[in-house]
Amino acid sequence: MIMGFGLAPASAEGGLLLTLFVIFVAAKLAAEVFERLKQPPVAGEILAGILIGPSVLALVTPGELTHALSEIGVIFLLFLVGLETKPADIFRVGGRATLVAIIGVIVPFVLGYLVMHAWGQEQIEAIFVGAAMVATSVGITARVLGQMGLLSLETSRIILGAAVIDDILGLIILAIVSSLAKGGVHYAQIGTTALLAIGFTLLIIFVGARAVNRFRSRVENLRVGHSYLVFGLSLCLGLALVATHIGVAAIIGAFLAGMAMAESVEGTDMPPQVEAVTEFLLPFFLVNIGMQLNLDAFLNRSTIILAVIVTLLAVVSKLIGCGAAAWPLGRKKAMQVGMGMVPRGEVGIVVAQIGLGLNAVDQATYGVVLFMAVATTLIAPPFLARLYREEKRVDEEPVLPITPIS
Amino acid sequence: MIMGFGLAPASAEGGLLLTLFVIFVAAKLAAEVFERLKQPPVAGEILAGILIGPSVLALVTPGELTHALSEIGVIFLLFLVGLETKPADIFRVGGRATLVAIIGVIVPFVLGYLVMHAWGQEQIEAIFVGAAMVATSVGITARVLGQMGLLSLETSRIILGAAVIDDILGLIILAIVSSLAKGGVHYAQIGTTALLAIGFTLLIIFVGARAVNRFRSRVENLRVGHSYLVFGLSLCLGLALVATHIGVAAIIGAFLAGMAMAESVEGTDMPPQVEAVTEFLLPFFLVNIGMQLNLDAFLNRSTIILAVIVTLLAVVSKLIGCGAAAWPLGRKKAMQVGMGMVPRGEVGIVVAQIGLGLNAVDQATYGVVLFMAVATTLIAPPFLARLYREEKRVDEEPVLPITPIS
Repeated sequence: MIMGFGLAPASAEGGLLLTLFVIFVAAKLAAEVFERLKQPPVAGEILAGILIGPSVLALVTPGELTHALSEIGVIFLLFLVGLETKPADIFRVGGRATLVAIIGVIVPFVLGYLVMHAWGQEQIEAIFVGAAMVATSVGITARVLGQMGLLSLETSRIILGAAVIDDILGLIILAIVSSLAKGGVHYAQIGTTALLAIGFTLLIIFVGARAVNRFRSRVENLRVGHSYLVFGLSLCLGLALVATHIGVAAIIGAFLAGMAMAESVEGTDMPPQVEAVTEFLLPFFLVNIGMQLNLDAFLNRSTIILAVIVTLLAVVSKLIGCGAAAWPLGRKKAMQVGMGMVPRGEVGIVVAQIGLGLNAVDQATYGVVLFMAVATTLIAPPFLARLYREEKRVDEEPVLPITPIS
Repeated sequence: MIMGFGLAPASAEGGLLLTLFVIFVAAKLAAEVFERLKQPPVAGEILAGILIGPSVLALVTPGELTHALSEIGVIFLLFLVGLETKPADIFRVGGRATLVAIIGVIVPFVLGYLVMHAWGQEQIEAIFVGAAMVATSVGITARVLGQMGLLSLETSRIILGAAVIDDILGLIILAIVSSLAKGGVHYAQIGTTALLAIGFTLLIIFVGARAVNRFRSRVENLRVGHSYLVFGLSLCLGLALVATHIGVAAIIGAFLAGMAMAESVEGTDMPPQVEAVTEFLLPFFLVNIGMQLNLDAFLNRSTIILAVIVTLLAVVSKLIGCGAAAWPLGRKKAMQVGMGMVPRGEVGIVVAQIGLGLNAVDQATYGVVLFMAVATTLIAPPFLARLYREEKRVDEEPVLPITPIS
């Protein structure tokens, strides 16, 4: 594209490329350094986000574009994880995952509420912090386990299943909490949404794979290039869209879409293709989490102390809650599951933003939740890597085979 | 991500996904229909953009996000084309490509200027229309030839080489024209920019491949996952960024980055990975071209007539200019090269936008150029497909092999 001298289109194009370049290169440099330090690269990429974000170097300002790429990145990640997870794998751990999700929601909510109450915060603010501590950002854990080749372990599947249920529970809690902040709870409406969310999830899990299998020969006969990839991306975006309309997370829709296709695409080149797209887009998600951290909110010593307390509580409450539910599997697996549910990431941030929008949460408390959300995503990966260190790779490797094109 | 009920974040996320879903699915449905009609799918995807864009169904509104994705899509496409083009391939056709570019710039410029002048337009407006008719949108042709497996033909390489030179010439012309519109031409500044652009291109062509080859073992030893892909994307984004700073098109930087890596990555899984990313992003580029078309400007009969004349002239002038330069290769190859240089796409649109911004071009003329830009991208692919129909696939196939992951 021909560009003028300092005219608007040139700088817009240059600005876009600068943003992409800085985020991608910073993320991957940090990942390389972390790999060399034998630390999970995920944590490096989040730290890179803190570094280049507004708090420190201010090289990149988060905006519509970074947010959109981040969103697409995590959607592709969960779609990819879904492609490696067959519905039967989740059925097998369904009961345990449900228990992990339920206890893992109750304990953080109650502890979060109590500590904010004890700290002298308002009732509604304490409830919002509790709600922000509930939901798991499963992307971080999925990425760590995926990079270690451990996604098909029993505990990985419990974590994935629990994260889906966790998200539905979180949706219900957030609905109730938001209604409280607005002054009245509409139980009928919330009940409808909850039923829709549960129905959608069960429908895709039980019917999705069969429907896709029936479609398989039609997809094969499409004339459009890379028909599996095209069909898969359409299904992924479509179910993610439906999920947001129902009220569940887009990533849940993407994960379910992947699961529905898992059997059909086995042996095709589609999963490595999705992996390639994810490799490009995922850094934007991880860096975006880091960029959210606003250190300005922490000039106050009491805020810093509260943020550290809330963060510790966020870690401990999931470890206790989810760990207790997974205890029958043995101490080590219980710890793995508990730690896998620790990252709050973008989920916690969104809850806090909603609270801020409803005037239920003030700027200082928002900062505290933000710190907790980012810190838990940074704390969990190294511990996860340690807890899983002795497990052998069980996923097939390499997912993207080295095949000559010439 | 947990979402509330009709709260802002939910609708923003839903809006993003709706845009992605509608564009991707509409493009691919149209591509499928066009494949069945034995027409080039590229034209279908552009038509899908016209259909879902503001002119017809208004399902999607072009904005910052669609523009950014479109930009990334065409950058990846040219990077991919570069990966299949070794510098030596371009050297061999360098002289011919230079001639094709030069005559292919002069003829459209002169004819465009003359017809607008004869139509009674202002001097500066006529000059701008001439400039908008100069530069080739090589992405469309590259996609058509790539999908036919014909990128390594002699004529394909002439087209690619000519498009690079064409872009530099277009840059110089646009600089002069913009200066004229602003009231004074700074030859020293324009000369510097031209030298920078030429120097950058020659430097990457002559030194790039050798530099990358030296780096090869270091890239292999990186610990970060998919190190070739990571290195390649970084180089692609980096050179695209440098290109925009110099004033050449970002896609030229991406193409040069691909060419510099072409030898090093032969036999690795990196080109098919880039292809997968391109498959996801390219529809946004093609649809975006179609969405630019604003039919509101065509309520006036005289504008319609002018638009048709300018479009015909845009086709004929490249056929004559580039065809004449390629005539020694024989009539058929001359026609192939000429038709390959016809699409103006986003390049013509950007020139018209700059003219609009400088008040050198009015809304009606802008509409005419827009029509010409979109129409040439639609006209060229079917003729290209016909002109190349009897050529045998020469590129290795399939670029992305079907390799089981389990």
